[in-house]
Amino acid sequence: MKKFSKEEIRVLINLLDFSKIKGELIPIIAQDHETNEVLMLAFANKVAIEKSLETGYMHYYSRSRQKVWQKGETSGHFQELQEIFVDCDNDSILIKVRQTGAACHEGYYSCFYRNFKNGKFNEIRKRIFNPKDVYGN
Amino acid sequence: MKKFSKEEIRVLINLLDFSKIKGELIPIIAQDHETNEVLMLAFANKVAIEKSLETGYMHYYSRSRQKVWQKGETSGHFQELQEIFVDCDNDSILIKVRQTGAACHEGYYSCFYRNFKNGKFNEIRKRIFNPKDVYGN
Repeated sequence: MKKFSKEEIRVLINLLDFSKIKGELIPIIAQDHETNEVLMLAFANKVAIEKSLETGYMHYYSRSRQKVWQKGETSGHFQELQEIFVDCDNDSILIKVRQTGAACHEGYYSCFYRNFKNGKFNEIRKRIFNPKDVYGN
Repeated sequence: MKKFSKEEIRVLINLLDFSKIKGELIPIIAQDHETNEVLMLAFANKVAIEKSLETGYMHYYSRSRQKVWQKGETSGHFQELQEIFVDCDNDSILIKVRQTGAACHEGYYSCFYRNFKNGKFNEIRKRIFNPKDVYGN
């Protein structure tokens, strides 16, 4: 797991452009550090990024609940930060993570478990867990 | 290259949730169809998605220029659509593409050509082209 010092975090935050999305958010792509499978896309504000880099566990900002949350805080399916990349415009982040359990709250390893083909969604991944078992009803 | 019929496009557009980002935009992650390297993150509106699926060439919406653009229209660095995935919330798209040349306007194959390590950005990719040669001054 990769953690960063307070000074490193300050440097990174100052380099990032939070102005593009309402609420000062930056999209973060989480990718499996071994297979390069894309697991999810979520948004983070400054506090979520600070907490992620300080602890080594990914935190995001929930637009529906309007609060910072730690990935896995309910499910136990944490994401350990391995490496962080910033795009050419400094307004998007790509992270490589070690994913515990599964990234998707629907029970799949990746949130992108469906392709669109022949006019409909097709599940290309098997379910790893039953959401009711993890989150209750 | 993968193209879709008008009816398939209508079905997909109706399934997507455009309400989350101002301007009715959806984030699209473009991934290399062979290596799974993430190339870029961009936004698309309904028209951009329709044009992408109709032609098989990726189109996005430029928030700065406030218009739909075809990836590669200036540089010749087109993205041919190979496969499309939708996330569990229907508000993010992942596409696998065949990238001509390079995805990044800075001349790198991926826009995520820098990691953040030891308090600074480090280029982990070699430049493929000189931006001045492709875009002029």
